Amino acid sequence: MNSIQNYFKESKKILDSFLKAKVKTLGKGEIVKAIEYSIFSGGKRLRPILLFSLGEILEVEEDLLPFAASVEILHTASLIHDDLPIMDDDDFRRGKPSVHKKFNSAVALLSGDAMVSFASDIILESKYPIKKKTLLISLLNKAWGVNGIAGGQALEIEAENGKPIEPFEIFKRKTGALFGSVFEGAGVLKGMEETQLKEFYSIGENIGIVYQINDDLDDIGEKSYNSVNIYSEEELLKKRKNFVEKTLKMIHNYRLLKFPFREILKIIWREKNV
Amino acid sequence: MNSIQNYFKESKKILDSFLKAKVKTLGKGEIVKAIEYSIFSGGKRLRPILLFSLGEILEVEEDLLPFAASVEILHTASLIHDDLPIMDDDDFRRGKPSVHKKFNSAVALLSGDAMVSFASDIILESKYPIKKKTLLISLLNKAWGVNGIAGGQALEIEAENGKPIEPFEIFKRKTGALFGSVFEGAGVLKGMEETQLKEFYSIGENIGIVYQINDDLDDIGEKSYNSVNIYSEEELLKKRKNFVEKTLKMIHNYRLLKFPFREILKIIWREKNV
Repeated sequence: MNSIQNYFKESKKILDSFLKAKVKTLGKGEIVKAIEYSIFSGGKRLRPILLFSLGEILEVEEDLLPFAASVEILHTASLIHDDLPIMDDDDFRRGKPSVHKKFNSAVALLSGDAMVSFASDIILESKYPIKKKTLLISLLNKAWGVNGIAGGQALEIEAENGKPIEPFEIFKRKTGALFGSVFEGAGVLKGMEETQLKEFYSIGENIGIVYQINDDLDDIGEKSYNSVNIYSEEELLKKRKNFVEKTLKMIHNYRLLKFPFREILKIIWREKNV
Repeated sequence: MNSIQNYFKESKKILDSFLKAKVKTLGKGEIVKAIEYSIFSGGKRLRPILLFSLGEILEVEEDLLPFAASVEILHTASLIHDDLPIMDDDDFRRGKPSVHKKFNSAVALLSGDAMVSFASDIILESKYPIKKKTLLISLLNKAWGVNGIAGGQALEIEAENGKPIEPFEIFKRKTGALFGSVFEGAGVLKGMEETQLKEFYSIGENIGIVYQINDDLDDIGEKSYNSVNIYSEEELLKKRKNFVEKTLKMIHNYRLLKFPFREILKIIWREKNV
């Protein structure tokens, strides 16, 4: 059996060549260069690989690549906008100059904007049945919009400015929504029923929330907003434990705890006992 | 017969009440406030009203409101991003503080982002047949992305930085694409064939290009990039005349020159002889 390292490597290779071909269709110009730069700047491809692993276990017959690519593009777009001086003002991303440093802030803004259309177009141009196309675009919209990344980041800013905001409301939108969409998207591609889709969304959302809690626990004292300033570290760890247990139960119900999903979950959560 | 002023007034009223109801579904929070503020800050609703007028003449039976609203939302989102300090740095829009002045730059960025999902969701949640939904979202994507507003604004920045860029390549993307999408969208809702849809897109695109030429001629000496710095005013007026004549021929072929479209075209183009 393949090791998880090989699984990551192979998956990344396949995804990257799909993404390369898609970027080529965009033509030339500054923002296309910026899009290419941002997409191929060393992303771990966690969300697409999570989708691939689910597709394998669920024995999804649809091609997973278009949805995987569109999720990764949205994720990358959110990082470009998030790094802007008017947001987190980060000059580096994964050890390389962020897009607004490599190009400029206007190009960074516009390339992030254009990537939202790019992601949606990849779904529309895919061979998915039309009903699945609309369901997947709706998931991308949710992950990107008021109840997704944009909404989560806006809540975080409100929290930074002193408004009392429940940290899990931020986690849910900022990180949970895209993970939730990956899971529900896997379910859509499998052809699952409404109730199962909702449960799948919840599993993904919870995985994202735990991932975000880890991030906060790592960065104590290092970022302007941290849920550890609301809850104590002890309280947060307790909440994390609850989320992990609750989510594992749901994961068990769907018999998902196999290679390669199990190993990926261990990596995302940094939990040995999964 | 209704005067064109009444037609504008009535159309705006109907559109605004649809938009109000849709904004309500977004919930609460800073970016929803920013979205509401931007949408109801005195926009002329030119693109939606253009769509309504086409719908009337073509006798479109589908509800025009969802597509009209989504076009207006995208247009508004582009203005929010365009006004940002990292773009045109405009503190006022239609005599009111621009979104980043009223709120802040981060909220302006995020509200513009979220509006792209919002526009797409309105199409998905509409009662349009599913095939029309995907065609309309594809049009919105085109108008927003690399070959639309984002691409056009990026080209404009390159031109400002001294790169030789053909001004009509900017016009086509920055202004033409959304007008083109309005026209092609009207055709989609009517159920037109592929060839007609392409012609309809061209008509809209050309209308947008002439609109943008007018804007440049108005603002001589007032903006950092102006096509009058590439062509002389005389050359530009000649090109404008060619576009108007070419487009009027196409419009004649489709027998569109009736109330209210004819009057709206006069207003958009500021041409008496239409």
